[in-house]
Amino acid sequence: MLSDPGGELTTRAEHACCGGRVGFYSHASRALGLEARFAVFMPAGASMARRVPVIHLLAGLTCTEETFLIKSNVIRFAARHGIALVATDTSPRGAGVSGEDDAYDLGTGAGFYLDATRAPWDAHYRMGTYVGDELPHLTERLFALDGSRRGIMGHSMGGHGALVHALRAPQKWKSVSAFAPIVHPAIVPWGEKAFSTYLGADRTTWAAHDATLLLKAGHMHPTTILIDQGEADQFLHDQLRPDLFRDAATSVGQALDLRLHAGYDHSYWFIQSFIEDHVRHHAAILTGTPA
Amino acid sequence: MLSDPGGELTTRAEHACCGGRVGFYSHASRALGLEARFAVFMPAGASMARRVPVIHLLAGLTCTEETFLIKSNVIRFAARHGIALVATDTSPRGAGVSGEDDAYDLGTGAGFYLDATRAPWDAHYRMGTYVGDELPHLTERLFALDGSRRGIMGHSMGGHGALVHALRAPQKWKSVSAFAPIVHPAIVPWGEKAFSTYLGADRTTWAAHDATLLLKAGHMHPTTILIDQGEADQFLHDQLRPDLFRDAATSVGQALDLRLHAGYDHSYWFIQSFIEDHVRHHAAILTGTPA
Repeated sequence: MLSDPGGELTTRAEHACCGGRVGFYSHASRALGLEARFAVFMPAGASMARRVPVIHLLAGLTCTEETFLIKSNVIRFAARHGIALVATDTSPRGAGVSGEDDAYDLGTGAGFYLDATRAPWDAHYRMGTYVGDELPHLTERLFALDGSRRGIMGHSMGGHGALVHALRAPQKWKSVSAFAPIVHPAIVPWGEKAFSTYLGADRTTWAAHDATLLLKAGHMHPTTILIDQGEADQFLHDQLRPDLFRDAATSVGQALDLRLHAGYDHSYWFIQSFIEDHVRHHAAILTGTPA
Repeated sequence: MLSDPGGELTTRAEHACCGGRVGFYSHASRALGLEARFAVFMPAGASMARRVPVIHLLAGLTCTEETFLIKSNVIRFAARHGIALVATDTSPRGAGVSGEDDAYDLGTGAGFYLDATRAPWDAHYRMGTYVGDELPHLTERLFALDGSRRGIMGHSMGGHGALVHALRAPQKWKSVSAFAPIVHPAIVPWGEKAFSTYLGADRTTWAAHDATLLLKAGHMHPTTILIDQGEADQFLHDQLRPDLFRDAATSVGQALDLRLHAGYDHSYWFIQSFIEDHVRHHAAILTGTPA
């Protein structure tokens, strides 16, 4: 299922899983200017002659390319629907920016799926181009993936990434869902810290990286956006604010299925509980399977 | 679902999951003479007036009480069958034995679910009594668990633990299954290292801690033992040897369902792939649900 005649990838590990195969790879990333890691799950039956739909997974702060795959239960449902998964790392590694390892919410593990424009971050912190262009193109050249049926799903910081990328390029990302996303980073502490560092003090440059502001600026997704949010999430009121995204969606007419779940928090225990519905949501759009 | 009037437990974290609740606790263990950690998943609907069956989960080398729960996908199936889960840590922590942190396969993270008899290990390395007596009794006093419907499941070193405890006390452990268990530790490197350290050089004392030798000595389990084993497991030929357990089971008439899976390795990716069958196996015995 991997065809890499040019030797672009280093295979770090591969494991049979749920009838398919999950692999961990590294490569020299042009966007990041560094070695980058990602993971791919290929379901049984995929081949270059029979390419399968794919969902990209964007994890949250502190995670790696392994986290979403091992902790969310997503693979068993992707396998059931015949859908592949691509999981990115959450930041460049080893960029050498002073202080990049000092905080969990900035620098290493906290790339926010955008291209930094401010020195010294702009040299390597280019996860926007990596996730939006390089990783889909690379994986669709080397694996049996159908780029015309590509969805995106994320958690927390990764939920922010999924919403922003899908709203900016709906022709590229045909389906989108999120768990506990940061929907309005421009006005919450995590986002203000990251954006002021990566993008600078001029807040007008932040709007292209904020899902709520994108909606208000006229960016829409042609499908229903599925969002699950726990009501016992410790970050709900200070960092996440799905109510603001819902209000914006209502005002512009964006179809949104925002589900609030009493008692659930921000963890992968929460994601495990509702992941089946998310894969079904993507499958309905990407494969035509009834939701 | 937790009733702890005596304040025996410290609650480290609790999370809603799959309609139920997974909690992480610590307590002063008598068996270990140390603070010990464990985790409990309680499905929806359990109460002290409506106690539920329980499966104890024993993880492998290097793991903690969290590993099996977060990586195996087990919770969603336990929730579906209305079964609780209890997950132990894999060794005492902070016993202070010289060298206990030096190797992944001895000491910390490698308690082998037995009581050491050799100094200085015997002071705290008493995971046999902990898993066999203290933890079931503690959790069945404080949680809505039905101790008359108690099963045990493990992986690798934990598969060894599950088989040994179930064969020695089938009246206590009503159902048993394992992933890639160490079935004959007395003759493989992991077991020889652990047993010679914890039990000493007299191999006659090892027999009570070896599932294959227990079978040969007449210990049987009244139910079918379910074992899944990957044929691409890197430890299959040197450490695991399920063929030896199968031969012993055949010779003594122990019912065994040993399933070999081409391409699968020793990881939680393998466990994820077959965990549903294991929970169904236990449910059929513990709840009477058809398998």
